Amino acid sequence: MDKSSSQSEFEIIRRYFASSNLSFKRDGIELGIGDDAALIDVPENKHLAMSMDVLVSGIHFPADADPALIANRALAVNLSDLAAMAAQPYCFTLGLVLPDSDEIWLQRFSEGLASLARQYNCPLVGGDTSRGPLSISIQVQGLVDRSQAARRSAASSGDKIYVSGNLGDGAVALLALGLDSHLGDSFSFGVQSLSDQDRQYFSDAFFKPQPQLELADAAGKIFSSCIDISDGLQGDLGHILAASSMAATINIDALPYSMPSQRCMDTENRIVAALFGGDDYQLCFTVPGRDCAELERLARDIGVRVSSIGEIVSGEGVVYLDSDGAPVDFSARAYQHFASIQPAC
Amino acid sequence: MDKSSSQSEFEIIRRYFASSNLSFKRDGIELGIGDDAALIDVPENKHLAMSMDVLVSGIHFPADADPALIANRALAVNLSDLAAMAAQPYCFTLGLVLPDSDEIWLQRFSEGLASLARQYNCPLVGGDTSRGPLSISIQVQGLVDRSQAARRSAASSGDKIYVSGNLGDGAVALLALGLDSHLGDSFSFGVQSLSDQDRQYFSDAFFKPQPQLELADAAGKIFSSCIDISDGLQGDLGHILAASSMAATINIDALPYSMPSQRCMDTENRIVAALFGGDDYQLCFTVPGRDCAELERLARDIGVRVSSIGEIVSGEGVVYLDSDGAPVDFSARAYQHFASIQPAC
Repeated sequence: MDKSSSQSEFEIIRRYFASSNLSFKRDGIELGIGDDAALIDVPENKHLAMSMDVLVSGIHFPADADPALIANRALAVNLSDLAAMAAQPYCFTLGLVLPDSDEIWLQRFSEGLASLARQYNCPLVGGDTSRGPLSISIQVQGLVDRSQAARRSAASSGDKIYVSGNLGDGAVALLALGLDSHLGDSFSFGVQSLSDQDRQYFSDAFFKPQPQLELADAAGKIFSSCIDISDGLQGDLGHILAASSMAATINIDALPYSMPSQRCMDTENRIVAALFGGDDYQLCFTVPGRDCAELERLARDIGVRVSSIGEIVSGEGVVYLDSDGAPVDFSARAYQHFASIQPAC
Repeated sequence: MDKSSSQSEFEIIRRYFASSNLSFKRDGIELGIGDDAALIDVPENKHLAMSMDVLVSGIHFPADADPALIANRALAVNLSDLAAMAAQPYCFTLGLVLPDSDEIWLQRFSEGLASLARQYNCPLVGGDTSRGPLSISIQVQGLVDRSQAARRSAASSGDKIYVSGNLGDGAVALLALGLDSHLGDSFSFGVQSLSDQDRQYFSDAFFKPQPQLELADAAGKIFSSCIDISDGLQGDLGHILAASSMAATINIDALPYSMPSQRCMDTENRIVAALFGGDDYQLCFTVPGRDCAELERLARDIGVRVSSIGEIVSGEGVVYLDSDGAPVDFSARAYQHFASIQPAC
């Protein structure tokens, strides 16, 4: 066995994860890596928000991708869940399953984690490593004012429905990176025809999603409900509607797209990608009509695109409206990891 | 694709994990499964303790084992880390990677989790599921009085070293279950000669480790240091010594064994299993001399075996002493997941 695979678990943790660059000190972190459990404090006026995402090699990222980018995505998708609760990052833990202990891979992976952890003042405080097929479990902890957690359950009739950023980039990125898309034949376009610049754009959209923490911090208190739309707008909006016992109308023409996605897809593919594609780490949130001007001002101030795409109404389900206000039918489904339309791994 | 593998992720979570039997309500759990993140409260006089363990099929448990037992072990080994901090269970999250969504497997797995979660009033509050090679990441949260967390770093010269329960059963269980033991040729005995009763005993020791939470709750405040010895006594005691800048003497004759392990092994194998085997979810802790009588009384009251096996001294490293007080040399190593002596998976 070569040197790179003869490192002990303790040595790996010490060299790549217990570094001051990644497991740095932060107020309230009483004890980080190095004991049987981490110990943290939670201020009395705050809830602790916790979310865990598991990323499996070959399914959630290409096995041969840059380890720094894999790390970045693994942490960013978790931070997006905190944003959806209007919680601010506090600390995270890592469960890393590795086929071997490749020094270069570990170094790059650790650097990728450290960079994002530093950016959000969110140190690594513990976890576990093991041999096995490559997968990454991250649990992120956040703090949120007790009265201000943005849940899914309080959307009311008349609230406007907003999304942050652009929709559909995630679905394009999956195709461009050669990962399985659960959309199957319902979504396709000439990946080969992407310009180098656009290809890089979609790669960044995939590996470097921008968790909308700043928006949630600035405006979370006026959201009546909020969700991360990583499973696709239709499915995730459906969770808000179910939790709030409401229905929605969505104006198809109001869905926001990036320039690269407008360049590479026709209208139909763009709508499928936006509504059902998933992998967009954006927020879908509702805002009472009286607060919409304030929301749009706050978003403008921090330079985040928000788009009003529809309205909460009484009833059940979602009605899509075209530019004439006429209903449109869609049969594709929201992203579901175990759905029968998804190819087995 | 058959029906059992066509369930969506949301359906799996709803049917097997969001049940009131497993994701039950508990004071302080403000929000459990069903939003982007769980929300919990932490009383002002408590630290939140967090520990994550990842179990990989074929490495940490036999792939064909009873899913209820796999679930039991996965949660129990995490609870053992809480015991080692003298923290009491609060709630846990689950990252489950599954090759397919087998209903019978999921039902049994969920039942196994629910049983232990109920026993320790420790509900499931969130997590993630994905397709992929079977592995289980659990993060457990616990509460501990701010002044009473049992860390590794405060062992003092003259403190007595104790272990709970019996040593070496975990190493025997690995052999009996056909799992790789990192001890290799340094540990062997006639597995085939185990009686059915003893075989069942070791299977239970493996799948149903008893986290020493009651002992930690009763006596944690008089531990000067504590660690979970799942990586083997020598290695884990070494962590206490390093964190406390101390050395230790261990009396070989004082190591505690179960009757089945005494029946199946000679003395040499027993010592190797006890010191280096790992997979014993017991505590190693230190107690100032003046508190030893109190410790032994508390342990007797709750019916937990504790054994005084040595003493903290100044210096570095561990000296093993035989019954005559003469030093004994051991060359085997503590359990290290990535050590070169461990077969690759």
